Amino acid sequence: MATAVLDMSMSLDGFIAGPDDSPELPGGAGFSLHDWIGDPDDPSTAAGRDRDLMEAVRAAGAILSGRRTAEQAGHWGGDHHGMGVPIFVISRRAPSAEVAAHPLVHYVDDVADAVRQAKEAAGDRRVHMIGAAWVPAALEAGAIDEIQIHHVPLLLGAGRRLFELLPAPIRLEIAEVISTPRATHVRYRVLY
Amino acid sequence: MATAVLDMSMSLDGFIAGPDDSPELPGGAGFSLHDWIGDPDDPSTAAGRDRDLMEAVRAAGAILSGRRTAEQAGHWGGDHHGMGVPIFVISRRAPSAEVAAHPLVHYVDDVADAVRQAKEAAGDRRVHMIGAAWVPAALEAGAIDEIQIHHVPLLLGAGRRLFELLPAPIRLEIAEVISTPRATHVRYRVLY
Repeated sequence: MATAVLDMSMSLDGFIAGPDDSPELPGGAGFSLHDWIGDPDDPSTAAGRDRDLMEAVRAAGAILSGRRTAEQAGHWGGDHHGMGVPIFVISRRAPSAEVAAHPLVHYVDDVADAVRQAKEAAGDRRVHMIGAAWVPAALEAGAIDEIQIHHVPLLLGAGRRLFELLPAPIRLEIAEVISTPRATHVRYRVLY
Repeated sequence: MATAVLDMSMSLDGFIAGPDDSPELPGGAGFSLHDWIGDPDDPSTAAGRDRDLMEAVRAAGAILSGRRTAEQAGHWGGDHHGMGVPIFVISRRAPSAEVAAHPLVHYVDDVADAVRQAKEAAGDRRVHMIGAAWVPAALEAGAIDEIQIHHVPLLLGAGRRLFELLPAPIRLEIAEVISTPRATHVRYRVLY
């Protein structure tokens, strides 16, 4: 059975993008949260254990994304970093016309259904999940198995928060901590 | 010269207290962020490296706190966990009458001035700083040397955030990571 992992880089003040992020300015203004990755298409540009984390992402069997992230990334040209795996995008609205040209991209209107389809597609591999707006609904549905946070040593000051208000508190369990100079990578298991 | 260290336990979603925190309900509703500490008056109740962190707090030469935290804690009875060191409280309003009975407690109306007085009092020891509301002003004044965050594996869902909006982004440097089952303790140096 696949493991559904929300995988995000986050500043110490809880932001995943600086102010004014848009397709023209992905990640928003200010410092980048993704320097630890190097070039995502060339894992050799990341160092040591940072690289191991990117290799784990590249071994995923499916991608799940919010619509905002997918559109900012131009749906990764239809293939997330050349991995050749299906990409599930959560949105209640119909996809833009360009999506028809991308057979790996699937729009799904319900969060829990999108995660279920992605897990089926991933087989026994990880579902790599990115985004923020859909996260409260996914937690409410019990659809996130693990949360991999790359705690980046930055205070962005403003921008887009990963965690907005949730209807109830949730316990986590620390599954793994990898410490590098560029980020503290903590993998949390969600205890519903 | 003393090091001024903001030292806070924080949930993964950035809260330092759950909803409805008050003098009657310190820490607010929901799960506790402070289980890793054990009994702060008896360090032997914490385990392993969690205990080392509490010992470091108990070696501080001065305490600096926001007014809200100080009042919720009843000014620690006038002596922060029996450490016998001065306690500086940031507030523009005059202290309540009970404070007159606590010779170690000093109210200071300016953030930068409070940190300066606390560092003088601490000599070459750490200033242990707690609170949230005064943090943006202290960062703007360049008055926080280090930020020790105890990243606790909880999503509180709502409550009081440690980091509200800042006027500008700030780079940090990871100085130390201590990983225990109860928290990931990361000490950040502030790079102004």
